[in-house]
Order: sequence, then C-alpha cells, then structure tokens
Amino acid sequence: MAYEKAELVKRLASIEGHIRGIQKMVEDETYCVDVLKQTFAVQRALNKFEGELLRGHLSTCVPNGFKDGRNDQMAKELADIFELSKR
Amino acid sequence: MAYEKAELVKRLASIEGHIRGIQKMVEDETYCVDVLKQTFAVQRALNKFEGELLRGHLSTCVPNGFKDGRNDQMAKELADIFELSKR
Amino acid sequence: MAYEKAELVKRLASIEGHIRGIQKMVEDETYCVDVLKQTFAVQRALNKFEGELLRGHLSTCVPNGFKDGRNDQMAKELADIFELSKR
Amino acid sequence: MAYEKAELVKRLASIEGHIRGIQKMVEDETYCVDVLKQTFAVQRALNKFEGELLRGHLSTCVPNGFKDGRNDQMAKELADIFELSKR
Repeated sequence: MAYEKAELVKRLASIEGHIRGIQKMVEDETYCVDVLKQTFAVQRALNKFEGELLRGHLSTCVPNGFKDGRNDQMAKELADIFELSKR
Repeated sequence: MAYEKAELVKRLASIEGHIRGIQKMVEDETYCVDVLKQTFAVQRALNKFEGELLRGHLSTCVPNGFKDGRNDQMAKELADIFELSKR
Repeated sequence: MAYEKAELVKRLASIEGHIRGIQKMVEDETYCVDVLKQTFAVQRALNKFEGELLRGHLSTCVPNGFKDGRNDQMAKELADIFELSKR
Repeated sequence: MAYEKAELVKRLASIEGHIRGIQKMVEDETYCVDVLKQTFAVQRALNKFEGELLRGHLSTCVPNGFKDGRNDQMAKELADIFELSKR
C-alpha cells in the first residue's frame, strides 16, 4: 500500500469533525462570511490530504506501474488527477 | 438570515457522509487514485455549498451592509473570500 | 475609474513579456516541466492582477452601484467573478 | 521532445494577443468586471496549454524517466506540478 493508513484516517476524522462544526454554525444561523471561512479551511485540509496521498502514489504505485508496463493506465490516471484537482 | 438553513444543513450532512465513506475506503486500503477521485468530488460539493452561501450573502447581507454604510467591512470581507476561495 | 491605470498596464506588459519568453522556451524545445513552471508563474501574476482590479472594484464601483440601487447587477457580477475565478 | 512545438507556439501567440487586448481595455478605462472576465479567459487558455503539455510529459518523458531509473526526479517533479497548479 502506498499510504500511511492511520495517519490518513486521522486527517479524515478531523475533517469530518470540522464539517460537523460547520453544520452547527449553520443551524445557529452564523454570519455567512464566518461559515465560508470554515469551508475554505476544510478545502485546504482536503488539499493537504490529497497532497499526502499523491506523494505516496508517485513514489510507489507510479514507478511500479511503469515498471510493469502499465504506462497508458499510469499516464491516464495522472492526467485525470491533474484535471480534477483544478475544479 | 441570508440562507436557507435546512437546505444547507442537508448538503453538509451529505458531505459528512461522503467523508466517512472515504475513511472506510482508506481503512480498506483502496487504490490511491480511487480515493483521490472521491476527495475531489467532496471538494466540488463544497464549491457548490460555498456558491449557494455566497449568492445569499450577495443578495442580502451585502446590499444591507452598503445601505448601512459598512462599506469598508463589506469590501474587505469580499476581497478575503475571493482570496481564500483560490487556495 | 476604480483602478490605477498605469500600474495595471505595467503589470500586463510584464505578463506579455513573460508569455513571449515561454514561446521562446517552446521553440528551443525546453523540458516540459520547466515550461510548466513558467506558465504557473504567469497564472500567479494574473491572480495578483485580478486581486488588484477586484480591490478597486469592491472599494469604488460596488458601493456606488448599491448606492444607485443597481443591487441585482452588483450581486450577479460578483457571483460571476467568484465562479469564473475558480476555473 | 514530448510536445507538438508548432501547436503550442500558436496557442501562446494567441494568449499573447489576448493579453495585449486586455492592456488596450485598461488604457481605454474599460469597466473592471469586463476586464476581469478577459483575464479569467486567459487563465482558462493557460490551463488548456498546461493540460496539453502535461499529457505529452506523462506519455513520453515520464515513462522514459522511470525506465531510466530516475524515479525520484519524476516523482518530485510531478508532485511540484500538482502543487503549483493549484495556486
């Protein structure tokens, strides 16, 4: 496996808690701008999570994939990741 | 209040469930690329949530803020939102 | 006018020169990664240009627009800018 | 070389012309929002240029790099590209 499972699960648990906190803010009718600042913080945390996952992918799965001759699959997946990461 | 509380809480509950699903994927040692595609989907859902919140803010809080003469606060908050939304 | 014309024209002239430099790199068959790093730098320069323009817009045109009762136009334009800035 | 030189130079020439058009708009004191819409269009054109360049990189340089055992360089460069593309 190309990633540190416990570390990534911990990050996701923290993001889940953050989302629950934002739900509470909305229920309490918090000012829009303060809610937005929290969702942007969640997006930054997701960016970091994705960076972590990608680093593992690039240092493990990708070299193995190219060694095994699965070049097209590797190239296609990385192009998709690049494309999707910009939305 | 500038937003439809029930609608936004529902969106957040769905995002929270999505995050929990990704935690399960990581625990099951799912292939990195498949995990990444799901976190990108969560970010798109957050973008939509933010768009919704911002529309309410722009059509309610912002006109009221300028009417009340809180011009600097309104301008500063919108510039911050623009800046933060790009990270 | 909500912006410092000379300053913004100068920024655009510098971006134009940067683009011409990248054209030269491509003609010289420079390594893809080095070309990409330069286009990312241009995107950051465009982000700064847009931030500058937006600050002027928010501190001048937007308050005037709301004062004049053009609330729907102001809100629609800002929502569009937010949406377009994420692509 | 991993890219179609003539095609990419043509794209850059078009982007350069677009930037010059925006300079003219600023000199003519065009409304901020209309200027912003044009710079966002330039950024979308740069995104497409980068996607084109990356596809060539992934289908040519990257497989060759891994075949030659330059795994660390390839992984590092791709992680950098992912990181820089989000700014």
